[in-house]
Amino acid sequence: MCGSDQAIVTKGSKSSSGVVPEATEDNCRPNLPLDAIINLDHGDPTMFESYWRKLGNACTVTFTGYQSLSYFSNPKNLCWFLEPKLEEEIKKLHNVVGNATVEGYRIVVGTGSSQLIQAVLYALSDPLNEPKPINVVSATPYYSSYPEVTDFVRSGLYKWAGDAHNFDKDGPYIEMVTSPSNPDGVIREPVVNRAQGTLVHDLAYYWPQYTPITSPADYDIMLFTISKCTGHAGSRIGWALVKDVDVARKMVKFIEINTIGVSKESQQRAAKILEVITDSCSQTVRTPELDNFFEYGQHHLTERWKKLKVIVKRNGLFTLPKFPLQYCNFTGDFTKAHPAFAWMKCKEDVDCEELFRGHKILTRSGKRFGSDQKYVRISMLSRDEEFDLFVQRFSAFHGIANGN
Amino acid sequence: MCGSDQAIVTKGSKSSSGVVPEATEDNCRPNLPLDAIINLDHGDPTMFESYWRKLGNACTVTFTGYQSLSYFSNPKNLCWFLEPKLEEEIKKLHNVVGNATVEGYRIVVGTGSSQLIQAVLYALSDPLNEPKPINVVSATPYYSSYPEVTDFVRSGLYKWAGDAHNFDKDGPYIEMVTSPSNPDGVIREPVVNRAQGTLVHDLAYYWPQYTPITSPADYDIMLFTISKCTGHAGSRIGWALVKDVDVARKMVKFIEINTIGVSKESQQRAAKILEVITDSCSQTVRTPELDNFFEYGQHHLTERWKKLKVIVKRNGLFTLPKFPLQYCNFTGDFTKAHPAFAWMKCKEDVDCEELFRGHKILTRSGKRFGSDQKYVRISMLSRDEEFDLFVQRFSAFHGIANGN
Repeated sequence: MCGSDQAIVTKGSKSSSGVVPEATEDNCRPNLPLDAIINLDHGDPTMFESYWRKLGNACTVTFTGYQSLSYFSNPKNLCWFLEPKLEEEIKKLHNVVGNATVEGYRIVVGTGSSQLIQAVLYALSDPLNEPKPINVVSATPYYSSYPEVTDFVRSGLYKWAGDAHNFDKDGPYIEMVTSPSNPDGVIREPVVNRAQGTLVHDLAYYWPQYTPITSPADYDIMLFTISKCTGHAGSRIGWALVKDVDVARKMVKFIEINTIGVSKESQQRAAKILEVITDSCSQTVRTPELDNFFEYGQHHLTERWKKLKVIVKRNGLFTLPKFPLQYCNFTGDFTKAHPAFAWMKCKEDVDCEELFRGHKILTRSGKRFGSDQKYVRISMLSRDEEFDLFVQRFSAFHGIANGN
Repeated sequence: MCGSDQAIVTKGSKSSSGVVPEATEDNCRPNLPLDAIINLDHGDPTMFESYWRKLGNACTVTFTGYQSLSYFSNPKNLCWFLEPKLEEEIKKLHNVVGNATVEGYRIVVGTGSSQLIQAVLYALSDPLNEPKPINVVSATPYYSSYPEVTDFVRSGLYKWAGDAHNFDKDGPYIEMVTSPSNPDGVIREPVVNRAQGTLVHDLAYYWPQYTPITSPADYDIMLFTISKCTGHAGSRIGWALVKDVDVARKMVKFIEINTIGVSKESQQRAAKILEVITDSCSQTVRTPELDNFFEYGQHHLTERWKKLKVIVKRNGLFTLPKFPLQYCNFTGDFTKAHPAFAWMKCKEDVDCEELFRGHKILTRSGKRFGSDQKYVRISMLSRDEEFDLFVQRFSAFHGIANGN
């Protein structure tokens, strides 16, 4: 149930903060030996587990054997497999957070936002009028999955065309704009800016725990996922806000053929979870047990980033991106971004992923993002125990060239 | 929650058997007006809802907010997103039913069997050695989704090549063998039988309620889905039993790129449901409240088929497939198949789908299955109310040519 990838569970072993409590079914956390492999390659958002544990049964959902047998959630909806309660809670949450406009948009639910990316590419291709596959671009450093997701079945409808900065082909194209960017957390704008382009805004990280919310996004096609919003990656729920009804219809068609809809259980649980975090943002609904979810996340990430910056400054071997102070409409404060990933650059010309691997820390190389081997992406969303062990081990880095 | 596609809910209206009870949140069933559109196009398996309702809370599952946040179910398993409990229950069920060998197989879970079909095509293609897409065939009448699932993104890895009976191209090919067949319920064998072929056995309907279980299937690649086994189509859970570890690994890769795994909630609920039906098959575990699921399903389908055959015989306008009497190892009786679909042929040369549509009965035309417009596929798995209304309306058919 609470498998942490690559974490080796050894009861009673020492953590950075001394002897950690023994893992039990109740707390279900890995006790990491000092020399455990720390996997910060994936962005597995287990950091938020502590928030949900504290809530206990406040957002428990139950399924009887006779619920949700049908393929259909609402045959009258264009997105016939979208659970009405999830649609309602998605709208409420965006309205409370102020990160996206929902009026005038169709909602398409997907099995995570990966499926929605493919659904969008399918929907925006036009094989009747364009015999060649449409080019798909994104500015480096781009989300490492875009090339593979675009090309894995060698579609004749769309194909990966690399870094948007270097895109010089004629004709229609799709530009993926990830904002805040994965891997580097920076707010992005489109870079190609030509007439025949369609923009897809991947806003997975446009939530207050990661970045200041400066205005409600109102782009034509916007993608979100519960994985990065609340941490429930195992549920595989993403959603798209889509202005054009024909694009939405074609996305629904893709999901119909690909998986005949999306898990009803995940959708119903996601609806409950979104409801709880919306409640957590309300002064009137909130209880002493129910912390504001986004403030909790922001606080937690701020603490982690502080620790990381201290080490980076002290050892002088790496650089991190800098983020501007901006007014966040949600918190009502001036804040800086505290992204889900640290995009770290070695000051010397070495294979940075290899360097970290030498310390049993798994990261993702900059090469995977269309960038350089001097960079790595490090997940900031692991469980406390893993993050603490990472900090402890990272703080012992003394030099680069000799890998120690 | 219990949306029946196209069913128009009108409280207190008359059904074929008189005034049906009013729909309440508890029984949550549509009351169909006499002239309702009856949608028997999809194979939405809502028939089994009555079984699960009777069980009450016996297979209720609960999710707290902190469960299953991670992408990973078991990082040590080749299929790292497969919940261990689901794997265990799949094996137990096949062993109890005797419809498939599990020893020596890898289990790959998918978001329904549609995703697994695509994962198999991806896994069996070999772009390094075969620059042209591999041909995918199936004997008519084939499952209507195969052509679309194979070709919808115009993959360069695989392409639909139609009826296996007419396949005359050289080189490697994939033959989909659906047994029992969808649409016609017949037990199938491969038809191409050439050296470079790989067979994929789609065994979605190889369960005792539909057909006699004559031996445990032990083909190289076998696909199953909970939708047709227990009726939980909304959960989108399918599984593949795969002998070759490299094929399994490539299927896992497909699902990783396509949707980064499969809903944990659906998998855990599916595990519970499979556990309950396995228990229902055991004399020692069974309780008075827990009927043998497959006997219940078989009985229900036998009754429906009896009613249908009486009408077909009486009006003399159509023919139905005939099935042999066979010994079923599971029930220990000689039985005939009672398939999930009626594959009905008009004796006259008319568009049979149009004929039924004239009576507000939605069916799927034989053309969709690579066959003839004289055929339609009619779902036998609707709720009792819909089936009863269908029977009532169908029994009033008097002629074909004039559509009445």
